[in-house]
Amino acid sequence: MIKVSDLELEPNSQRKILLNVDLEGEKTINWVNEHKHSLSGVLDDNGVVLVRGLKFLTGKHFSQALETIFNEPLLEYMYRSTPRSQLKGQVYTATEYPASETILQHNESSYSNAWAMRIGFLCMLSPSEGGATPLADSREILSKIDKDVREEFEAKQIKYVRNYGDMDLPWSEVFQTTNKAEVEHYCQANQIEFEWKEDNGLRTYQILPATAYHPVTRDKLWFNQAHLFHVSSHSSEVKENMLSIFGEDNLPRNTYFGDGSAIDEAILQHIREVYEQTLFYFDWQKNDLLLVDNMLYSHGRQPFKGPRKVLVGMSNLHTHRAA
Amino acid sequence: MIKVSDLELEPNSQRKILLNVDLEGEKTINWVNEHKHSLSGVLDDNGVVLVRGLKFLTGKHFSQALETIFNEPLLEYMYRSTPRSQLKGQVYTATEYPASETILQHNESSYSNAWAMRIGFLCMLSPSEGGATPLADSREILSKIDKDVREEFEAKQIKYVRNYGDMDLPWSEVFQTTNKAEVEHYCQANQIEFEWKEDNGLRTYQILPATAYHPVTRDKLWFNQAHLFHVSSHSSEVKENMLSIFGEDNLPRNTYFGDGSAIDEAILQHIREVYEQTLFYFDWQKNDLLLVDNMLYSHGRQPFKGPRKVLVGMSNLHTHRAA
Repeated sequence: MIKVSDLELEPNSQRKILLNVDLEGEKTINWVNEHKHSLSGVLDDNGVVLVRGLKFLTGKHFSQALETIFNEPLLEYMYRSTPRSQLKGQVYTATEYPASETILQHNESSYSNAWAMRIGFLCMLSPSEGGATPLADSREILSKIDKDVREEFEAKQIKYVRNYGDMDLPWSEVFQTTNKAEVEHYCQANQIEFEWKEDNGLRTYQILPATAYHPVTRDKLWFNQAHLFHVSSHSSEVKENMLSIFGEDNLPRNTYFGDGSAIDEAILQHIREVYEQTLFYFDWQKNDLLLVDNMLYSHGRQPFKGPRKVLVGMSNLHTHRAA
Repeated sequence: MIKVSDLELEPNSQRKILLNVDLEGEKTINWVNEHKHSLSGVLDDNGVVLVRGLKFLTGKHFSQALETIFNEPLLEYMYRSTPRSQLKGQVYTATEYPASETILQHNESSYSNAWAMRIGFLCMLSPSEGGATPLADSREILSKIDKDVREEFEAKQIKYVRNYGDMDLPWSEVFQTTNKAEVEHYCQANQIEFEWKEDNGLRTYQILPATAYHPVTRDKLWFNQAHLFHVSSHSSEVKENMLSIFGEDNLPRNTYFGDGSAIDEAILQHIREVYEQTLFYFDWQKNDLLLVDNMLYSHGRQPFKGPRKVLVGMSNLHTHRAA
């Protein structure tokens, strides 16, 4: 039997996500095995759960625990958008971005036609300051976005444009291969348009819906990364620098409406503000295990000080077409 | 998110089965719907859970709640062994036996080749004294039964003999029909041997294993009703009376080894004592919802005083052959 208690979370104290575990001398993997259905059930109902009180030694133990709870092998992280290191057993480090930067809220891989339904995070090392992984309810985001904005995005969809190169991720890292034919095969299989450029460069396009239905709860969700991929997600100084270096067509990543027209920056700012108002967070403690339904909740990262190590594993691949 | 706390249960204080619910003004059926996966998961992991704090008005609400949690329509209670009344929506009263009698521990329908995996009980009216529904872990029962006894039962299996008539249930109630052809059809479909007797009488035989494997946990379980169907389950006075009235062949119910040989009464007494030593119980409160994995836990009933109303619903049919 699991014990669940409530954590008062800032700034939204209504959320209940904490499950305090007392191992009572039992091994973590045995406890997880005995409670796998309970954990999976709570995750199905609640969309997110923070399990505190387990003891993890290695990424391999984390990987084992996730495969037990998610009831599937973990996914290889293909078609990446951020740098990360792979540990043994399909476990990765969380995005390796500079500590001083915020990573905006996003549903993992929602710029793609296939994504993991389940994500697990493990805190191996909690930073001395900041570094939370904020969460935001995708149903709530949808309901708070202006009706006009939502309708325009739903009607036009979103075009994601990426240029792979030195300033962002090289395509060999994004596609995890140095073989161009393999890249083309992956793009064709995943409805990604591609265009080889001079000097081993690659540009891809993909048009995807702005919203999606959760396959189990049938809830309609805001499910895209327009606000994060758009060049306006950077400070105006960085944005101007990037535009002058690359030119708009060669920006590492950018978003448009599906018909190729520009998205008004004020609209994207409105979306970012809705995320900002909706998110809630907790302070990581070593061995915290966070389980997330990647459609029901987006995640992000706050700036931090001191060393920080959070591992990630994903499973249960799902596609727009399967919905 | 569900809250789970622990109840100190007598006489075995190690069991954790209580889930204390705070509805916070929400309707019971809505709460159940939001937590159905959590409840089902806890039931899968723990085998039994007592949900306290819900508000039920009618048997129909209880039926709805069970169908939500069990994710299946409830079963009609065919091939009964005890008298009970049916309410709307496949919900039944618990066995209507005299208040002064103990109902021995049993896994529901384990005298049959098909049984419900899931049982829900709802307390509509708690008695002023006694009337608990004790629980016993079928794995623990198996482990505590003498090795020789277990091996003999596993090798020989159990023959259940029933004679339907005025002193026990008439066959029309057991099979829920007055049509003999329908009874024959049910028996043929369920590997029950039958024999029509004079004066509209019916005798049936069935040979079934003494143990079974749980289809999900793969645990081996003690899963039979030899100790309850055998004539020695009655006091020696009642037993002698029954034998003199009916004669052994026409006892309302009795058990033998599968080869037809008698089971030593001392062995059956040992089995009853193992149940007695293993069971644990709680005092019913109005609106208590008890969810049980019918293979992992047996249930029974203590004698009571005052009015008592406990409803029962079942689902998820399973058979020996499907194991």
